[in-house]
Parts: sequence; structure tokens; C-alpha cells
Amino acid sequence: MKLKNLVGLRFKERPADCVIDSHALMVRGGYMKYVGNGIFSEYPVLHRITAKIENIIREEMNRIDGQEVLFPVVMPAELWQESGRYDSIGNELVRFQDRSKSKMVLGMTHEEAAVHLVREYGQSYQQYPFMIYQIQRKFRDEARPRAGMIRVREFTMKDAYSFHTSQEDLEQYYAKCYDAYNRIFQRVGIPEVVTVASDSGMMGGNISHEYMLLNEVGEDSIVLCSECDYRANMEAAENIVENISSNNLAALECIETPDCKTIEDVCSFLKSDVESSCKAVVYQKNADDAFVVAFVRGDYEVNETKLRNLVGEEIHPAEITADSPLVAGYIGPYGISDQVSFYCDNSLKGIDSMVAGANKEGFHYVGLNLERDLENVTYVDIAKVKDGGICPCCGKPALTIKRGIEVGNIFQLGTKYTKSMNMQYVDKDGATHNPIMGCYGIGIGRLAASVCEAKHDEYGPIWPISIAPWEVHLCCIRPDDEQSKKVADDLYEELKKHNVEVIYDDRDGVRAGQMFADADLLGVPIRIIVSPRNLKENSVEISTRDKSVSDRVEVASALDYILNLKEKMYSDILNV
Amino acid sequence: MKLKNLVGLRFKERPADCVIDSHALMVRGGYMKYVGNGIFSEYPVLHRITAKIENIIREEMNRIDGQEVLFPVVMPAELWQESGRYDSIGNELVRFQDRSKSKMVLGMTHEEAAVHLVREYGQSYQQYPFMIYQIQRKFRDEARPRAGMIRVREFTMKDAYSFHTSQEDLEQYYAKCYDAYNRIFQRVGIPEVVTVASDSGMMGGNISHEYMLLNEVGEDSIVLCSECDYRANMEAAENIVENISSNNLAALECIETPDCKTIEDVCSFLKSDVESSCKAVVYQKNADDAFVVAFVRGDYEVNETKLRNLVGEEIHPAEITADSPLVAGYIGPYGISDQVSFYCDNSLKGIDSMVAGANKEGFHYVGLNLERDLENVTYVDIAKVKDGGICPCCGKPALTIKRGIEVGNIFQLGTKYTKSMNMQYVDKDGATHNPIMGCYGIGIGRLAASVCEAKHDEYGPIWPISIAPWEVHLCCIRPDDEQSKKVADDLYEELKKHNVEVIYDDRDGVRAGQMFADADLLGVPIRIIVSPRNLKENSVEISTRDKSVSDRVEVASALDYILNLKEKMYSDILNV
Repeated sequence: MKLKNLVGLRFKERPADCVIDSHALMVRGGYMKYVGNGIFSEYPVLHRITAKIENIIREEMNRIDGQEVLFPVVMPAELWQESGRYDSIGNELVRFQDRSKSKMVLGMTHEEAAVHLVREYGQSYQQYPFMIYQIQRKFRDEARPRAGMIRVREFTMKDAYSFHTSQEDLEQYYAKCYDAYNRIFQRVGIPEVVTVASDSGMMGGNISHEYMLLNEVGEDSIVLCSECDYRANMEAAENIVENISSNNLAALECIETPDCKTIEDVCSFLKSDVESSCKAVVYQKNADDAFVVAFVRGDYEVNETKLRNLVGEEIHPAEITADSPLVAGYIGPYGISDQVSFYCDNSLKGIDSMVAGANKEGFHYVGLNLERDLENVTYVDIAKVKDGGICPCCGKPALTIKRGIEVGNIFQLGTKYTKSMNMQYVDKDGATHNPIMGCYGIGIGRLAASVCEAKHDEYGPIWPISIAPWEVHLCCIRPDDEQSKKVADDLYEELKKHNVEVIYDDRDGVRAGQMFADADLLGVPIRIIVSPRNLKENSVEISTRDKSVSDRVEVASALDYILNLKEKMYSDILNV
Repeated sequence: MKLKNLVGLRFKERPADCVIDSHALMVRGGYMKYVGNGIFSEYPVLHRITAKIENIIREEMNRIDGQEVLFPVVMPAELWQESGRYDSIGNELVRFQDRSKSKMVLGMTHEEAAVHLVREYGQSYQQYPFMIYQIQRKFRDEARPRAGMIRVREFTMKDAYSFHTSQEDLEQYYAKCYDAYNRIFQRVGIPEVVTVASDSGMMGGNISHEYMLLNEVGEDSIVLCSECDYRANMEAAENIVENISSNNLAALECIETPDCKTIEDVCSFLKSDVESSCKAVVYQKNADDAFVVAFVRGDYEVNETKLRNLVGEEIHPAEITADSPLVAGYIGPYGISDQVSFYCDNSLKGIDSMVAGANKEGFHYVGLNLERDLENVTYVDIAKVKDGGICPCCGKPALTIKRGIEVGNIFQLGTKYTKSMNMQYVDKDGATHNPIMGCYGIGIGRLAASVCEAKHDEYGPIWPISIAPWEVHLCCIRPDDEQSKKVADDLYEELKKHNVEVIYDDRDGVRAGQMFADADLLGVPIRIIVSPRNLKENSVEISTRDKSVSDRVEVASALDYILNLKEKMYSDILNV
């Protein structure tokens, strides 16, 4: 198509409200428009990209025997009451009443709808396994939408649900899907995406993986081992700490530590190491405000996700008042009120002599040894991994922490939904069971933005050819020059005839600089420049957006050159 | 794919809650599943059909220079407040509050979102004309969803919006879109769809057309002329009535008509013709309950849409109480209270001597002549056309009334939205104007169901090949027979190799009758039956779902036969 007809404005100034590059470039390039908090419309440029991403995903889902279906955006509350999530999910789930006062929800995920769709179909073991998926809009009322398309409230998602009669069968399918996802990320041009073990959160189930694009603007912390293949989301990464015993236990002693309410204060006052101090972090259960104290070594932080999983219910940072059975700033595991439950992190194990709060205003214990002084101490893993930490896989102190954008996830759900929603099949012996589920998600818009974040320069995105809005950007920089116009027009027609997707800039009275700036913002991989100067030598200029190619090519050879270049770019993507 | 893997159950019994055939067949065939009132999930079979319909629509929209975009399902109320529709639309528009108590709506149409997307882009006349469209889910909280996919609450719709700088330009584009729609209906296999002039309703604007599939189960009444091309929706059809004057005016007389509260009672009591009686139908304005009386000739019905357009605001059937300034059963235009507004229909014009209520309990006037007895009588068109009525186009008494399903609509919106939402462009002389809009909709699911309603027999749908879930249905009715299985397997592989979409039924232990019943429910146009009996003669059976073809074909020629048949079926669709 001709650029002059393309709906969407391009401009130079970086919008003040864009904190990450992909967002700024996609606003500046006329890809998206803000409609409301976390809600955007897509201009034609972005729609062309998302349509290509969707088709790649569709092909890969069909290749692993997925069958495309469609679930509703709006669902009756009953469906979510069946699974229990109508009550257990917070206000990310939009609830409203329809005209007849029936309670409805907006789909933020579709496990319930999937089980509902196949509950009758899946009554015999002979129907298994099967997988259904959809590509559909979802609305999740996020508290803090951010970073353009990275975290929004309304988004298009591919969500897939597989059903199995055994854990082994699920695991086999899960492995196929794991590979399909890797192919998807390769095909959209970000083969560098890594998988990490993750926490399943509210989805239920056990084993799950996230596909992470390592990138500074990501919201997730990823733990990677530089010595082996270990990778995990911070929320799921096991933290291993080895304290070396001096075999020299001091006596337990309660001493006055006036105005020492922080670990730093206490260590400085007592001239002790932070590594032999005990830090208390206090939470309350959402349900009844009961106190839960997490004790970790002074130099570690609490991993709330792990703690929450251990407690088995929702918790929030505590408010300690004068009435509380806790003395803020002086909380320690020895002598703590039996009205509170507490957990001791692995990082405290094996510390000979520890400094810890004495549960008494202005006092700490020194010489505390948990194994000796507490009855039945149990250690649990509730701390965050640190840079340089010990790898749970190879055992070397080689962990590093990076930021990542989650571009996909896969979950082994187990029977959480089939049990609660009473989906059963009869096996070949006539016995009934709940099928075992897996689910597999990719956010389309976030993936587009992530590719942009990974592949751009200061002038615009550098789209991989497989998802670029067009394959070729043809600039006729002097359309008032008769020869230039004719050569460019002819090339345009020839390229279209050969099924090349071309955006053709033949705008009158637009400076070459403006044309190039626009081309940079559209990020089309192959660029052709037709100009009177080049035509004097009977050639056109052909270059790539990533600057790896920049050639003068004879007019007569231009078409073949481009067809070859295009083919090479596609095969390069598959041969990474 | 293999039928045994297809997700979705097929069954024989017609569901009790299905009032129309397409709904019953699409439930019985595993196309759709009820989720809630007017809300369905789509199984893979239906999704394959809707995907094909969407692609046909997309091609035709692109062909008339449409650019695909995407608007959000959820929008902030502010956007709809700008146009005024947040307040003017009833409870079909779902309104809710998000987690931060901001007012939101669910998109039931996207004029506001379209204007919002291009308001800045369209600031110069040089950008015009342009058209943007999307294919997206919508939710409209219908009071009475019915007939399966025909009238639902959540649906996928293609909605397009064009922008112009002159009425002439809009009309030119409108004509292009008019043709594109005809191509779409031809390509999906229902070229018999007709266009009718329609009322624009809440969309605003003037000229509009609906595309109607004439069908008994339709909700719309269509007025057609058997002598010329005139076609209109009942809501928009002009009603012409000619009363022949006898030039013999009687004197106005008020006479007692005890217990005559209906037209029939009065005519019978007075032995007069219904054609010289005056019927009153009473409404109230929604805003202030003020009475509005519509007078029509006794044998006509009031067309509420025309009346509503004339009144210029929402009205509802009146409740007449003892306090009302109206005497129920005895309401007439002569001597009516000046507290009520009234309208006299064209059908009353030229009646010499009329019977009409005397606005007094138990009394009617006879010999009423409106021109003589009322001051300044004006006649308006507020009655419904009747069978045999006069065609407003050719003037012959040749109107007939049929039922139709609306499968698409196109509107000339004018500046309703660009004015209210303050979208302006600067023309080449520097003056500012509001652009002129058109909008163009097609409901995808309703179109699929309409094709099914138009093309089915008692056993299942007869899908046109262009939108059929598969092109070929291959039945191996004795997969336990080695030769049958091999011939069928080979054909399956060959057909796939030649890009034929095949559904292959090689289920073991399923009776042939069951296989054929399933094939009928899937409605695939070409069927191949491989059986030991046919193979004795080295042939397979090839037939079409519409029964126009039924042949025995040698195994070796089967592939070519099918490829030719397939090609012919596609070209037949385009050559209707």
C-alpha cells in the first residue's frame, strides 16, 4: 500500500509518559493509541504485526494437534463459582450485573470455560488426549498497567488447554508444547527467550514454566546460573545458604540495645556481622489478621510468594500496634509470643551465635543458637536468592539475577479445575476419574512490544521479517522526477506481483530526511531508495533496517536481489 | 484431520429449546455450546466456518481500501459521554465500574472508538477519504436473545467506518461498499440476499440499507414490490393509501355507541366499513409521560419507528388511567384534549365521512370529515404497509411482505459523531469542517447461522464450499478391512498433499449409518465413501452433500475427480 494512505500519525518527540523505548516508538510510529488506563486501540501497522504473530502461533498450535475454539469474553458468574475463583480472585476479575441483575464476569483467563466446553465431550477415555485453544480478547483489571503494551488491562491472548488421562501423558504433551513455544519465539525473531521454572500462583497445579525475554525493562527477576542451565523465576528459585560453623557456641545472653531498631543499628552497636544476625519481617493473614513472622538472615530478603505458598493463604505486610503481641524492632524467634506463628528461613541454619530481637523493648539476644535454644526448629525456604548465591542444580556459587519480560507461560494444572467443576471420564475398566489438565498462554500485544524492546535503535523498531508490517519499504524521494517515479512505480507493481508486501512512499513535497525517519519508525526490514542521483548510474539503493546490508543494485536486477534477500531473511530466522 | 479427534459431540435428538432449524442442527452437530443467556462458546467446527467467513470479509474490505485496526472491548465511559450515547442508549449498553471506581462500558458498536482513533490523523483534507475496520467481539445486552446465533448478546462483528470530506465522496464510497457486501454474500454462498432501505435508528444519519436473507424465521418484515425493484424494511417503508371521495359529505353527528370500545364493535354497531373508521393508538413520551396519539384508518397498524422518528424522542405504549385527559375506547381527533399531541396518518386523508371516537364515554362521531372539521389538519406517514399496498416506486398495488434475517447493514452517518466528538479537518482554503462518516457492519456468527438456515435439510447443514469446515468428508466404513483402510488412508494423504481440507472418518466399530448421520451434521460439500463393496469394482463413491452429484469413480481417478469437483464448486459460487 501507499504510505500516504496509511492511517496513523508518526512524529518525532518522545511522549513524556512513555517510560520504555518500545512504548515510545510504538506511539511515535502510529502503532497504538491510548484509550484509557491500560487500554489501547491498534492502528493498521500494529494490527499487521499482531496478525502475523497470531498466524505463527496458530500454525504451531495446530502442529501439536491443537483445535481452535472461541470462548466468550463475558461469562455468567456461576461458571466461576463452580471453580471457586469467583470468590478467591481479587478485583482483577471484573464483576458486573447484566440488565436482569444476573452476575457476570469478564474473562481474564478461560480454564472454567474450557472445562465447560468439553465436560460432556470428554466423558470417555477414548477421547483423550486433546487440546483446544483460542485467540481472544481478555480483560484483567490490573492495579498498575505500565510500559505500553507490556502490562495492560485489555489484551489479546492465545490460551490453550490440554486434557489427559495420566500425569505421564500430560508431561509428554507439556514437552511438545514446550518445544512449540520455543519455535514460536524463534519464528517471531526472539530466539534468545529462555524458559524458567516458575511459581504457579493462582492458576493451581505444580510444575510450570515461564518464557522470559531477558531485558532491563522487564518486571520479573530471573535467577540464572552461569555454570549450568539452571534458570528460575525469583518467585520460584530455591535459595541455598551454607553457614560455616566455628563449633564455638557462645552463651545466650539478653542485653540492652537502646534505640537499635534496625539490623544495621544492632550490628553497628554490637560490632557484629550482619551474617550472624536474624531479621524479622512481619505479615498478617488477610482472613483474620493473625500475625505471621518470617525470620531470615540479616542480609537476605523475604520472598513473599514462597511464604504465601507455605502459609497457604493470602497475607499482607503487618501493622504492629501497641496492642500487638509483638514489639516492633525487637522481634526474635526466642521467647516470641505463642499468639503468633513464625517461620525460620534456611539461611539461619547453622549460625553458631546469632543476634536476634528479645521481644522486649530495647533488648536483643546475643549468642542465640536456634538448634540449641529453640525446641524443634524447622527451617524452610522463604528468602530471595542473591547474586552470587549457590545454584540448586550444580551447587556452585554462580547465580546471577537479571530482569526479564514474561512472554509466555505453560502450566501443569493437574485436576484443580476438573475436580472442582466435576468433569469426569470413564476409563476402559469403567472407573471414573478427573482428567488432568495443562494450560498454555501467550499475550499477543506484549509479545509484539517485547520484540520491539529487544530489536530497536533510537530511530525505531527493527522488525524481524516474519512479523514486520511489510517486507519492503520503497521510497521514491523525488516523485516529481519523472524517471524516478516511473522506476519506483514499476518496482512497486513488480514486487506486489511477486507477493512481496510493500509499503510505498511516493509522497510529494516530503523531504528525504522525513521519509527516512518515517521508514525507521515503521521498521520494515528491507528498504529501497529510488533517487535521481542513483538513477544516473542506473541503480537503486537497497539496505536493511538492521544495517547489515547496504548496496547499490542495477535497476534491472533489483527485483531478483530483493526476492533473494527476502528469502534469506526468512531462512535466517529459522536457522538461528 | 481425523473425525475421531474432533472436539465436540454430535447427537440425534432435537434439543427442546431450539426454535429454529439452524440452531438445532448447530447444537446437534457440535458447533456451539450454551454458556449463558445469549452467550455461546464455539467448537472447532464452527470456528473453522467463522474463520473462513472472516477471511472473505477481510479480502473484500481490503479490496475497497479498508485498513484493519482493533478497538478495545472495554472503554472508558468518557468516550461515550463525548458522543452523548452514554446517556441516550438504554440498558443494552453494559456499564460497570472498574477497581478504581471509574465508569466503563462494553463496546456494542465502535463509532466513538473510531472517531477517537483518527481524530488527530484526520486533521488535514489531504488524508481523506479513508476507511478503517475491525473484526472484534461485542457485547449488547439484548432483552430477548433468541434463535441460537441469530440474536445473541456476545458476538463477533466486522464493523467498518469511513471518513469523507463531502457527501458526494461518502456516496461514492457507500456505493463501493454496497457492492463489496453483495460480493461477500455471494462468496459465502447466499447470493439471494437482498438490500432494503432501512431506518437508521440510534445510529444517526439518514440513508441506510440492510442486507436481508428472506427467510420465514427472520425477525424483520420486508416490504417488496412484485412489479418493480422496490424493497424496504417495514420500519422504513413508505405507506401510500388512496381513499376515493364520493363527493358526498355527511353532517357531523355525535351518537351514542354503548360498550363499543373497539373498531370492530363500532363498525358492527353502526354497520359502517372499517375503511371509513378512525383508530387511535396511544403512546407516552419516555421523558415526561406526555400523551401522543396516533390516528390511522381502522384497517391499518401504527408503525412505531416512524412515529418515534416524527416525535423525535423515545415513546412507549400508554397507560390510560381515570386521571388521563383521554377516554379509553372513545378517542378521536375531533374535540380531543389540547393536553395531548396527536398525529393523523395519510390513510385518513380523503375519507369523506368518518367514524371516530367522540372523546366522551360511550359516544362516537359519524360523518366526520377531517379537512372540514379540524383546523389545519396535516397528514403524516405513521402506518405500516399492508400486503397489496401501493408501491411508492412504481405506483402499482403490488407490495408483498416477507420475513427476513438481517445479515448486514450500511449507514450514511453524516456528521453525528464527528460533530459531537469535535473531529475536524482543515480544507485546502484553511476552513475547518466536520468529516462525514459512513459505517458498515456484518455479524459473523449470525451470518454463519443464516447460511445454515438457508442451506440445510432435515439431516444437517449443506455448507457452501467457500465456508464449509472442510472441503471433503472421507468415510472409511470398514476400517477393519485391510484394503478399505489402505485405499482410504492413501486418499487421505493424497488429498492433504493437494491442499484439500479433509475430515477423515476411520472410526472402528461405528456403523455406516452413524458415520453418514455425522457427515450430514457436519455438512461438508464433497463426500467420499470407501467400502469393501465398492472396492470389489475397484471404485469409491463420491457424492455431494446437496445430492446434485452421486458417482462411482475408479480408485485411480478419485483424486482428479475430487480436485475437479472442488474447483467447479468454488467457481459455481462465483458464477451465480
